[in-house]
Amino acid sequence: MNFLEERITRDGVVKEGGVLKVDSFLNHCMDIDLFEEMGREFKNRFADKEINKILTIEASGIGIACIAARYFGVPVVFAKKSQSINIDGDVYLAEVESFTHKRTNRVIVSKKFINEGDKVLIIDDFLANGCALKGLISIAEAAGASVEGIGIAVEKGFQPGGKIIRDMGYDLKSLAIVDGMNADTGEVIFREQGE
Amino acid sequence: MNFLEERITRDGVVKEGGVLKVDSFLNHCMDIDLFEEMGREFKNRFADKEINKILTIEASGIGIACIAARYFGVPVVFAKKSQSINIDGDVYLAEVESFTHKRTNRVIVSKKFINEGDKVLIIDDFLANGCALKGLISIAEAAGASVEGIGIAVEKGFQPGGKIIRDMGYDLKSLAIVDGMNADTGEVIFREQGE
Repeated sequence: MNFLEERITRDGVVKEGGVLKVDSFLNHCMDIDLFEEMGREFKNRFADKEINKILTIEASGIGIACIAARYFGVPVVFAKKSQSINIDGDVYLAEVESFTHKRTNRVIVSKKFINEGDKVLIIDDFLANGCALKGLISIAEAAGASVEGIGIAVEKGFQPGGKIIRDMGYDLKSLAIVDGMNADTGEVIFREQGE
Repeated sequence: MNFLEERITRDGVVKEGGVLKVDSFLNHCMDIDLFEEMGREFKNRFADKEINKILTIEASGIGIACIAARYFGVPVVFAKKSQSINIDGDVYLAEVESFTHKRTNRVIVSKKFINEGDKVLIIDDFLANGCALKGLISIAEAAGASVEGIGIAVEKGFQPGGKIIRDMGYDLKSLAIVDGMNADTGEVIFREQGE
């Protein structure tokens, strides 16, 4: 098990209905030392890629993306949920269905901050159905940027997002892929990734 | 001028209606090197305080808080907007009026992640009316935590939040305090802070 799988095993909580709570270290309370390890590991896994920008989505992707950005030496752009009056009209927009919140969010990125020729690494905390990722990919590609890689902290391997995104040809790497969970025993089964 | 005032002068955009756009480096596209400077400066300004947790609010406070947390060696907890089905019922809650979005958000922090005796540093990107800060303070104090300090990137000194929070007795430090702006000339006037 790698450091993130070990942490999930220790501090993750399995709930009924395929819910894995990692809010004590990943997406509500954030363990910055763990984020540093994740940032280093993303840099290792995408060492061969030339990246000039990290793209993520609010809210829980932002912390991981900002720490990871230190290892790539690049800025972070985050897609915002819903229109703000402080955003210029000139935005790339995607509709993202949220599994967690049972609603559709409109997410936007100002056209000023993602450009043709950008080499983008997408970072997010969770991958389940892949809706958020597909939204970020569509925004990057609408801008003429290339998605050089996608780094995810925790992928739910028993939901379809990972397969869909990999089948589309993207270089998707998840630090932990959960293939099964047992809410009675609390057990989490990880996919062997051979690293 | 300090580093943040210089950056605002160079890259901030003044709009009609008291709007200062800093989205090219602070709250949409995020300059992580700048965040590092801000993190170091927060640590300098709160060097005498014993802090064991940073508290912020989604979304644009998260990046600054996570980078600042490296300098304090503490975890970050962020208050979430709106109820998620993934949050346990046991939460501290505050109503926060958003000046930018013209609506009231309910923000929540799980009771698991803020506790009696916690010595909290609150970090946020912007201070205008102080509604978000008052919400975070009320959550910290409902938990029995003490608010040891409040670190803000950009305070709009011509709006009432800063005075209200300082009059309440909190140790509020803003890296840049904007006392006036001119939408015609683009000029930004900063308060002298004697540092």
